[in-house]
Formats: sequence, structure tokens, C-alpha cells
Amino acid sequence: MRYRLSVSTAIFYGKVKKRRAELALPADEEGKERYPNKPAVTAMAGILYRKFGLKTAFTLRSHLNTDSLPAVARTLSPGFSNGQLQTSKDRLWGIRCRELHAGGHAAPARRPFSRVTPEDLAFFRKLLPGRTITDPDLLEASNVDWLKSVKGFSEVLLKPRTTKEVSEILRYCNSCNLAVSPQGGNTGLVGGSVPVYDEIILSTALMNSVLNFDRVSGILSCQAGCVLESLSAYLEDRDYIMPLDLGAKGSCHIGGNVATNAGGLRLLRYGSLRGTVLGLEVVLADGRVLDCMATLRKDNTGYDLKQLFIGSEGTLGVITAVTILCPRKPKAVNVAFLGCESFEQLLQTFQMCRGMLGEILSAFEFLDRDCMRLLNSHLKLANPITDCPFYILIETSGSNPTHDEEKLHQFLEEAMTSSLVIDGTVATEELKIKALWSLRERVTEALTHDGFTYKYDISLPVEQIYQLVTDMREHLGDRAKSVVGYGHVGDGNVHLNITSPAKNPALLASIEPFVYEWTARFHGSISAEHGLGLKKRNYIYYSKSSQAVALMGNIKTMFDPKGILNPYKTLPDDLQRAS
Amino acid sequence: MRYRLSVSTAIFYGKVKKRRAELALPADEEGKERYPNKPAVTAMAGILYRKFGLKTAFTLRSHLNTDSLPAVARTLSPGFSNGQLQTSKDRLWGIRCRELHAGGHAAPARRPFSRVTPEDLAFFRKLLPGRTITDPDLLEASNVDWLKSVKGFSEVLLKPRTTKEVSEILRYCNSCNLAVSPQGGNTGLVGGSVPVYDEIILSTALMNSVLNFDRVSGILSCQAGCVLESLSAYLEDRDYIMPLDLGAKGSCHIGGNVATNAGGLRLLRYGSLRGTVLGLEVVLADGRVLDCMATLRKDNTGYDLKQLFIGSEGTLGVITAVTILCPRKPKAVNVAFLGCESFEQLLQTFQMCRGMLGEILSAFEFLDRDCMRLLNSHLKLANPITDCPFYILIETSGSNPTHDEEKLHQFLEEAMTSSLVIDGTVATEELKIKALWSLRERVTEALTHDGFTYKYDISLPVEQIYQLVTDMREHLGDRAKSVVGYGHVGDGNVHLNITSPAKNPALLASIEPFVYEWTARFHGSISAEHGLGLKKRNYIYYSKSSQAVALMGNIKTMFDPKGILNPYKTLPDDLQRAS
Repeated sequence: MRYRLSVSTAIFYGKVKKRRAELALPADEEGKERYPNKPAVTAMAGILYRKFGLKTAFTLRSHLNTDSLPAVARTLSPGFSNGQLQTSKDRLWGIRCRELHAGGHAAPARRPFSRVTPEDLAFFRKLLPGRTITDPDLLEASNVDWLKSVKGFSEVLLKPRTTKEVSEILRYCNSCNLAVSPQGGNTGLVGGSVPVYDEIILSTALMNSVLNFDRVSGILSCQAGCVLESLSAYLEDRDYIMPLDLGAKGSCHIGGNVATNAGGLRLLRYGSLRGTVLGLEVVLADGRVLDCMATLRKDNTGYDLKQLFIGSEGTLGVITAVTILCPRKPKAVNVAFLGCESFEQLLQTFQMCRGMLGEILSAFEFLDRDCMRLLNSHLKLANPITDCPFYILIETSGSNPTHDEEKLHQFLEEAMTSSLVIDGTVATEELKIKALWSLRERVTEALTHDGFTYKYDISLPVEQIYQLVTDMREHLGDRAKSVVGYGHVGDGNVHLNITSPAKNPALLASIEPFVYEWTARFHGSISAEHGLGLKKRNYIYYSKSSQAVALMGNIKTMFDPKGILNPYKTLPDDLQRAS
Repeated sequence: MRYRLSVSTAIFYGKVKKRRAELALPADEEGKERYPNKPAVTAMAGILYRKFGLKTAFTLRSHLNTDSLPAVARTLSPGFSNGQLQTSKDRLWGIRCRELHAGGHAAPARRPFSRVTPEDLAFFRKLLPGRTITDPDLLEASNVDWLKSVKGFSEVLLKPRTTKEVSEILRYCNSCNLAVSPQGGNTGLVGGSVPVYDEIILSTALMNSVLNFDRVSGILSCQAGCVLESLSAYLEDRDYIMPLDLGAKGSCHIGGNVATNAGGLRLLRYGSLRGTVLGLEVVLADGRVLDCMATLRKDNTGYDLKQLFIGSEGTLGVITAVTILCPRKPKAVNVAFLGCESFEQLLQTFQMCRGMLGEILSAFEFLDRDCMRLLNSHLKLANPITDCPFYILIETSGSNPTHDEEKLHQFLEEAMTSSLVIDGTVATEELKIKALWSLRERVTEALTHDGFTYKYDISLPVEQIYQLVTDMREHLGDRAKSVVGYGHVGDGNVHLNITSPAKNPALLASIEPFVYEWTARFHGSISAEHGLGLKKRNYIYYSKSSQAVALMGNIKTMFDPKGILNPYKTLPDDLQRAS
């Protein structure tokens, strides 16, 4: 006797189709069902239950004991059991990093820039009447970062509206040796967007005009201060989307996104800003305006200078305008939220997903059980599926809804029958899609409620990304409140976050340099997408050769000989001292 | 009475499906069919005929008179009738370019580099025994470019196998002030890959090892001298493909591709090398090895130095190894070759195509009637469809053959019923796909048989790309033998080629600066993908601000203070004189 659970292709989407997938379940002698393929059945059951409240599905689920799921392996990864560093060929980061590490987090001493005088203020007020802010209350939000982890003491906030104004500000500051901290939406996570001492804050907040949009080519030109979400809304009305999306979209500026080479949630599909940014306008330290505002997909006339400014965190110039290639708005978007028993199975799911969803796969994100716990307890967000060690969020975007649904269904069926996924839910309506996305996007926010957070943004070969979290958890034992991992599987990028009831130097000393040495050992990047800013500047040698760092110093000197642009950031202290 | 032509979805693919599209054709009173929608019927008929030799289709075609197709508009584009330049804001190219133009094509005087001595040869022979070539016969092919348009007089060809050897060569040359011309497959079209005088040729031909391939991430690391087609074959065996493809794939080296930021046939789908190249190893002018060989999709630790070398044409360093992100091999590839009556209709077809084929569109290429004429007469390649003013090659690549075929069919049906396309054929089998692709890829070769060719590789807003060809044809009248246009519609990139029975300075004087001024007027790029090399170096100001060019000069000086790397290339003469 065999029990048959029929699943229609269309069940996920509320349509009726003829195609049926069959999962065959043997029954034992006493008439009770046994589940040789438990996870697949649970997953299917969970989906059926949530989507349609099917009683059968519910009954099937009740037989499963989720407590019996195997725990995540907690052993240290092979070859790293002693926690010691094996020096990588051609990299000098070993000794140099340990040397710098001691003072890594502390800001270096204030460099001998001029202090703002009444004459300077008079100049700024004449140039920017009503837009030269000196009221300490109004300055406060711009002096501290979003995480409230870095605080400066700037007494002047300038809000130019035009490139010409930015140019005049910088020409003046450079001639007077006044340091400048460029600021977009101030959503950075490495202390790169706030002053360290009394640097003048140059905000792009009022530079928020769209300059041009070409509906044929999808090329958008806009000022640097446009908020990402506003640009997205502008484009959606015109049947396009921005090629990047990130949790901070409601505040972050496109200029800041470019200056930090933001990655985010769509990189897997639309690639990095290095490919999609077609042109930039940049004001150099001495006020010269560098016009690289091409609106062309291809231009091989000499060195691509704009690339230097992408990801240079405001240390080489102030980006004032951006030209970016935008993809068509997809006609269909689907999101699946799935649960896995192990990270190994999650990776197998990823491989299967890439093969079966192919060109429509637009995101493959993950969070672990601890992230879900924080979402539940701090933000009251409910887990839409069974408790699992790992959760996956898969997004598809395509031009043909029927084809996309078929592909997604075939993939889900395969993932479940091969026991890779133990539960899941699917959304096609915008509201439910947003709800599922918020589980991934709001982890950062949940963490801020859990205590003081030590944040790490690590790139690794994808097979290794969770081992770092497991090893760190083992390494720290009960010294940390929470050790969680989430991030962009498709990009090999994990966000490792460690919380503590309060700032805890002893805990920090246990985390670092352990985390950086671990990363360097696997040839990872110690900052996948957050940048270096103030906080990570001295750890650059873990990911870049000393040769490369020295060249960075030469380039900085060439573009900003007085070093007035975003000082104390991005470049390591030894290099700043040297220059 | 209505005549109905039923077209099954599967007719294109030799399968039987139920879905039927119906084109309704009214018949006139005398019982003869009339064709209110002639082009659609012809297209469909053409496809039916070629694919299945259907008699009905053949009959339908015989009613059409292709001579009645409207000729391409030959008027000059509005606002450019006087051929005069309107100076673009913030660009100084006007006067400067005209000044440089006179001597633009001629090489500048030999700079005071050392000449190779017997002692130098002894050093090279000790370092590279059997791989230091001085036999003039063996050197000949490396001294002249593929187009036979630039010829140098180098007496030494070096063939290193390792990065260390490249490093020792450059350290020696830099210390002795010996100029070096790096050379990959020598397939460049702007004279960038051959010596101008007696520069030592440094060939990457023996640096052709794959260093690593990660089957999970699709990240390939290899030496710079790997031939693109060999890498493609290597990857295809492993279910991946290279993210770039170009006509010269059988000879070009991946290092040369990166050094010139090659675009090619897959850019529309997989983006530029600036996004897909993840890491580079570069030997600097003084022999230092810069290791930027990351194998990570994301790395925001400081300035992205490798970008400087992408597209710098060997003037800043010699690329010795490359890490590149490769896409999965698509499970289905289809190619359609279509004909249009006008470029306007071609553009409308492109827009429709982008909407309906969406994520599976991997190429949208075009050639004009004159290209087809050259293919027919010089290479004996037959036109697979009716004679048309414009031909489109569309490629789709996807993960689900059935879905792709459906999408392609729906698009073709729509394109034909809306009269955008007047004839076409579709290929799904590899041999026929290659045959169709060769019509696009072999235009360059056909041109070489037509006479001396003046080649221009222009980026423009896509609406403008063919107007340049039309205007040039009008402008030259009967002074040119052929004036043809083909290229990458999806990238806004046209290859304008003008032939003459022999080299013709008077003709050249009519073409230039006309072509550059035309391009600059529409904010185009005077080199979309070919680079500047020797031939286009002095026209850089048409596409780059003088500010940007000056910064290029500073960067060149920083990386190669003696200027030994690929001298006389990429940077304009005024800048080389200044440095």
C-alpha cells in the first residue's frame, strides 16, 4: 500500500494546472505512515499548510519531530585547530597586522589641519546662505554614525546644491588646509561617513535631482544625493529598476553607494557597480571638476578613471553625479523562504538552484537560527516556517510569469524530494514578498536591540562562509551573548555579528585578530561590501598586499596631496603617517 | 473568405505543440490573396520555407516584390547639415583635436630609449634560453598587426613562461631604459600590440596554463597567454562558459582581452570585464609584481587597483594572470537571423525583444545590406533570408529549452505580425547556429578582401548608431568603395568601415575628423571597444575631458616613470611630450 501526496504545479500560485508531481510514501505494517523522505514531505506539507491551510498537510506535519534534526557541526575547521596563522605567500600582513592591531580601533591623533575660523564661516555663509549649519543640535545627527559607534565633533555642516558649490567649497578648504568629511545618507557601518575630529561635514542631502533618464537605454543620470529608494520609485514608474538594492535604501544616497561600492541584494543578478556605473562627476580635493559622465555602455578611450572613485570612500574626491545603467523592471517576481537542516544542504540547494532557476535567480540569501531568534524576540517578526538551523530566501525575477513559476516549482519539488529543504513558503504577492524580505533585511536592526554589536562583513569561498561563524561561536564560548551569521550566499559574503550586553574590550580582544586571521587564511576579504572606513582601515593588510597598499598611498597623494578628504579613513595609519 | 496560415509554436523547432497562432489574410474579390501585412507574411513564409521547404510558404513568398522596399534614408541627421562642430560644454577637444589631427596617424618620433646591445641579448638568452627570438623571419609576424596596417622593426622577441621571468625582463629593461611592447594574440585593430620602432616584443604566448578552476563558484584563474577559445573549450567541458566571446577568439589571449577591456558578443548579457574580472596579477614597469589575484566576488578593502590595468593597453603594467567569474553554460541556445526594412524598425524590434526575451537575450547584433554583399562576394557566404536593408542576429541563452523556445516564438510572432521583421530564420542546432553567427563574425574578414579598410568603432546612444553610417555615406559620395555598418545594437556600438581600392590619404582626410566630430557631437565614444593604441591615441580628446587626460598622464608617470611600457600608445602625443 502506498500513500500518494499529489502536488499541483499551480498550488503555489493558486492556479489550476494539470501537471502533477507525486511523492510516494510507503506505509508500515501497522498502517502508520513512515517517511523515508521526511524533510521533503515536511517542506511540502508546510507549504501546503501555510498557503491553503490544507488539513492533510497539517496532519502530515504533526508526525515529524523537529527536535531530532541534527545540530550544526561545531568543530573548528580542519587545519585551523590551533588558531595560528600560516603566512600566505606574497603577503606581508602577518607581522604588520599584529603591529597595527593594538591601536586599530582607536582613531589616530588629529592631524595638523586648520581649525574653522569666523572668516571661514563667513565665506561658507556667503556661498551657501541658509545652508551652512552650525547649530550643535542640528549637527548632532551628522556627527554620529547609524550604529552610534563613532562620534565626531564637527562644528560645520555644509549643504551644497550644485557641483559648482562643491567645487568652491573644496577649493577653499584645500587652500586653507581644512579637512572635509563627505557625507551621504550616513548609513555606513564602518565609521566612514562621519567626522573623526572637527572635519567639516559636506552633505549631499540637497543634491537630489534626477538629471536625465533615457527610456530606451535605461540609463539614469542623477545628482549624488538622490536617495536610493526614491530613485527606485522613479524608475519603477518608468518600467525600470535600480541595479542595486540594500536594507538602508530609505536613507542611503546613490553617491554614497558608489563611493563605497555598495553590494547589496541584487549583485548576484545585476553585477557590481563597477559594471553598471557608466559615468561619474567628481570634484577633486583642489576643487577641479572631473567630468567622466559618459552615458555609454562602452568606452575604451584610455584609463577608466571613474573606477578609482568607486569604493574609495570619499578619500580621492567627492562624487557629485552618477550615470547608471538600469535593468528593465521584471514582469514577475517570486520569493521562496526555505529551511535547511545543515549549511551543507543549504549549499547543495544553492547549486541546484543555480542550475534550475538559472537566469531568473535574482537573490539567494541566508540567515541562521540565531538570527531568527533575534527577529522573533526583538522585532516580533514571526517565523513563517518550521524552526530550522538555516533559512534561505530565494528571489526570482523574470519576463514571463508562467515560465518563472514553472521553474520555481520544478526547483522546489526537486529540492524537497532530494531532502535538501525541510520546509518552505512561497510568495508572489507584493505584500507577502515584502514580509519575507523583511526577515532578511531586518536582521541588522534586530541585532541593535540585542546589545553592543561587533560587525564583520567577510567574503570567502562560498563553501567556507558559515564555518567562520561556527568556529567563532566555538572560539568565544559563553563570552558572547549572540554569535549569528547571515548574508549573501550567492556572493560568498557572510555577515558575522557578535553581541554583548555592553561594549566589551575583552570580548573584542578575543574576536580580533582571530576573525581577520581566519579570513586571511582562506584568502577571503575582511570587508566584502562595507568598506574600511575608520574602523577597519588598519586591517587592510589581511586582504591586500603591501605593494598594493603602497600604490593606494601614491594614488591618494596624487589626488589629494594635503590629505584633506575624509582623513583617518580607508588608508592604514602607517601609510597616513608616511605621507 | 479568409485565408488562414496556421503556425505552430513548434514549427521552429520541429516539435508538435497544440498552441496555434493565426494570421488572418483577406482575399480580394477575384480570389487573389492580398497582403495587408506583407512583411509579416514574408517573414513567416521565409522561415517555413527554409526550415521545412514548405510549398505553401514558397508560394506566398513569390507574391512579394523586395525591390519595392523603401531605401534607407540618406539625409544627414538634423542639426549636423553643415558638418561643423558645436563645442560641447566642459570639453576642450575642439581646437586641441584639430591641432593634433594633422599628424594624428603618423607615429611620433622615436623617443630616446636605449638600443638593444649584444650584452642585453646575452642577458635575455641566459634568462630565456631558446625563447629569445632574433631571427628576422620569426620576428616578422610579431612586428606587424593583423590588419597589416602598422609595422615595427623590433629585433628581439621574448617568450617568458612565468611571472618571475616577466618580472626579471622588465626590471632589466627599466634599468637599461629599453622600451617594451607587450603582445598577446596580436589581434588588435588599433596598432596597440605591435612595436612602433625597435621596442622589445614581450609575448605572453607561452604563458598559457590554467591555474585553477572552482566548479562551485565558476571562478577561473589562468595565465595571461591562454587563448580565449581554449579557455572556452576548457570551461565547456566543465559546464561553464567564458563571460566574453569575440571574432578573434581563436588567436586572442585573455591577458590581451583584459588589457584592452575587450567587449565582444556577450557583453549585453554578462556585462563588461570590469565586473567579471575578479583578480589580476600585473608586473609593473620596474619589475615589481602586483598581486591582486582575488578569487572573490566582493572585496571592498581599499582602491580597486586592478581596474587601472583593465583597458590600459599595456601602458601601465604587463598582465601575467587573470581571475575571472564565468557563467554557467546555458542549457539552451537559439539564434534567429532576421531582416528589417529600416533601422527604425530594427530599433523597434530591439525594444520588443528586450521586453519579450528579457533575461534570456544574450546578443542583439546587426549588419547592413552592404556587409551582406561583401560576405556574399568575398567569402561566398550565402544570405539565408531575403535581401533586406538590415539584418539582425538575436541569440538567446537560458536554462530551460522549452521556455526559451516559447519566448522566442512569441517574440517572433509579435515581431512579424507587427511588420517589424520582413523575413527570418531560426537555428537551434550547433552547426546552423555557427553558420548564422559567422555572418556576423566574418564581416571584418570580408572587409579585408574589399580593399584598404578605414575602421571606426563608435559608441553612441543607440538611436544614433546607424545615422553615422548614413551620414558618412552621404558625405563621402563615390569617393569610397564601400561604406558599411555593423555591430552590437544592444551595447550602442557600431563598427563603421570604409574601404578603398588602396590606401588613400585624400579619402582619409574626408573621413577624419568628420567621423570624430560627428561622434563627439552626440557625446559618443570614438573607441567603444577597440581601444586607442597607436592609431587613435590623438583623438582621445573627442571623448575625454582634458582634465581626465591630464590625470591619465599623471597615472602613467606614477606607474612607469621612464615610459618604457608600450610607448607611443593610448596617451596622446602632447601628453607624451609633456612627460
